[in-house]
Amino acid sequence: MEYRKIKDEDEDRDPVVEDVEKSFSLSGAVQDNNLTSGGETKIDSHRTKAKWKRKSVVTLALTILTSSQAILIVWSKRAGKYEYSVTTANFLVETLKCAISLVALGRIWKREGVNEDNRLTTTLDEVIVYPIPAALYLVKNLLQYYIFAYVDAPGYQILKNLNIISTGVLYRIMLKRRLSEIQWAAFVLLTAGCTTAQLNSNSDHVLQTPFQGWVMAIVMALLSGFAGVYTEAIIKKRPSRNINVQNFWLYVFGMCFNSVAMLVQDFDAVMNKGFFHGYSFITVLMIFNHALSGIAVSMVMKYADNIVKVYSTSVAMLLTAVVSVFLFGFHLSLAFFLGTVVVSVAIYLHSAGKIQR
Amino acid sequence: MEYRKIKDEDEDRDPVVEDVEKSFSLSGAVQDNNLTSGGETKIDSHRTKAKWKRKSVVTLALTILTSSQAILIVWSKRAGKYEYSVTTANFLVETLKCAISLVALGRIWKREGVNEDNRLTTTLDEVIVYPIPAALYLVKNLLQYYIFAYVDAPGYQILKNLNIISTGVLYRIMLKRRLSEIQWAAFVLLTAGCTTAQLNSNSDHVLQTPFQGWVMAIVMALLSGFAGVYTEAIIKKRPSRNINVQNFWLYVFGMCFNSVAMLVQDFDAVMNKGFFHGYSFITVLMIFNHALSGIAVSMVMKYADNIVKVYSTSVAMLLTAVVSVFLFGFHLSLAFFLGTVVVSVAIYLHSAGKIQR
Repeated sequence: MEYRKIKDEDEDRDPVVEDVEKSFSLSGAVQDNNLTSGGETKIDSHRTKAKWKRKSVVTLALTILTSSQAILIVWSKRAGKYEYSVTTANFLVETLKCAISLVALGRIWKREGVNEDNRLTTTLDEVIVYPIPAALYLVKNLLQYYIFAYVDAPGYQILKNLNIISTGVLYRIMLKRRLSEIQWAAFVLLTAGCTTAQLNSNSDHVLQTPFQGWVMAIVMALLSGFAGVYTEAIIKKRPSRNINVQNFWLYVFGMCFNSVAMLVQDFDAVMNKGFFHGYSFITVLMIFNHALSGIAVSMVMKYADNIVKVYSTSVAMLLTAVVSVFLFGFHLSLAFFLGTVVVSVAIYLHSAGKIQR
Repeated sequence: MEYRKIKDEDEDRDPVVEDVEKSFSLSGAVQDNNLTSGGETKIDSHRTKAKWKRKSVVTLALTILTSSQAILIVWSKRAGKYEYSVTTANFLVETLKCAISLVALGRIWKREGVNEDNRLTTTLDEVIVYPIPAALYLVKNLLQYYIFAYVDAPGYQILKNLNIISTGVLYRIMLKRRLSEIQWAAFVLLTAGCTTAQLNSNSDHVLQTPFQGWVMAIVMALLSGFAGVYTEAIIKKRPSRNINVQNFWLYVFGMCFNSVAMLVQDFDAVMNKGFFHGYSFITVLMIFNHALSGIAVSMVMKYADNIVKVYSTSVAMLLTAVVSVFLFGFHLSLAFFLGTVVVSVAIYLHSAGKIQR
């Protein structure tokens, strides 16, 4: 499989920095890569800092966008039922992401001119893998309708934490990246902590989930984890390729799959009531939020990885609950407090357990 | 404070082994401590093994005794209310512990003869600290009656997990022993995991505990932690002193304090109904169990430490719940499962995070 190519890539190696290095060498400047002069050390530390900063910014953006997304969902639920067609909203999210990527690309072209890395045209070889994540997500979303025959909604929320484990396992297997033993322990804790934080008096129902329900939950977790890890593999396969081009192609296929879903599920509703039927201010907000979150996820895949994504969305889940206390007068449970402690320790351990290279 | 004397003692240094080494040196045998001959390495590995084995045996004994203790309590509650005076039972526990220590000592005297380390007679300087743990436990037990004005029994069970934190903090401060950062993280997880495992639908009540309740819970946790750590300091202060002599003196003062409690609380009942009024087979079993658990705690203090004790009793708590499923048809909750996962990871991290020396 092609995505195995990146298996030996250093985890701390930055693709963009690597490109900069390459162009340095190509320019023919007298530079010995083995020489560690004072100047180079300075450049190295500058690079590490810039890399760390960018990684932090995209992770923070993802965390904030994901938690505000959950808050918007609660808000929209309080405001009443969904009156609009969900498939049209999903289609618009993909379209908006495409548009944002194109605008960003336009600015880059203006500044840097069109080159090998930022041109929109592509080869079949490059583009052929881009529909796969979108297809996987579609299958997962279809399964979602069936799992509710076996599990109720709060139970489903708890089973969704299996995603964390599946992402970790697939990340290890598909991308051949290593986590230290401490980091694995942290990942188990992250799963347990998130689940603990979501416990309520009805949570024990989930233990009565029938066998088919468990199988479906595990299949869905694997699909979701696979889609995430596969997206990372695609994006990281060509480190020098501009992220906006990669996003554009990912989202074009997202638009295709979503327009099919729209035609199948909501053709009549759209034809009779109109495309924007039932849209409100909050619907527009949610579409913008989903689009930006989607782009943030891509950025995290490019500059960090799936593991960082999972930690980020877990923190977002906790953040949402805390913010909901102030916004909607929610109460925090002892279980939430304990789960937060466990997740915090997991985050600490993930960073403390970093493999020394 | 005198117990600070042991502060620089190597954590992995075994007091008994040290004594053996000392007597070796005193015997004048030609032996260079810096020399690492093949023979010495073999002896070292044998010592490490023997030490590890003894540590494991006492820890396992404590775990099994503590969990069977909890099961006996459930059993006795099912059989009906306590009909006997609790203070007489406590007095008998202390007496039994004294007797067991004396029997063990008698066997040692027979085998090795009476020497400096195993003679029962003592100096005021040695014995003066022995009543302190017993006094601390007495104060803690008295406070226990008052805390129930602010917290219900299940809430008290949850607040008791503060003991874990207080033991860790006092262990660090009083004994000057170091835990690595990973081990501290593990300790926080142990507390969170134990609390999670005990969660039930009424647990959130504990968050409404009034300020006085929290203060008392924290004071009780500190008293309990202090008593435990102080006992370890006393026992480890004279590493070569026989543990049975040390136990004998600890338990003699336990008998004294408990007889005072018996006179104050149950004088009338004992006078009118007799000392053994209301005793049953299960009462006798519980007294034996408490006596053996108490001795196991002392052994763990001598050959391991308070941290091991806390892990051991936490595992015992989980074990009790699992055994209760089979014995009493209890149901395990999702919270219990999650708590068990967190405690298991904590145990792994405690051992993985060992400070390298």
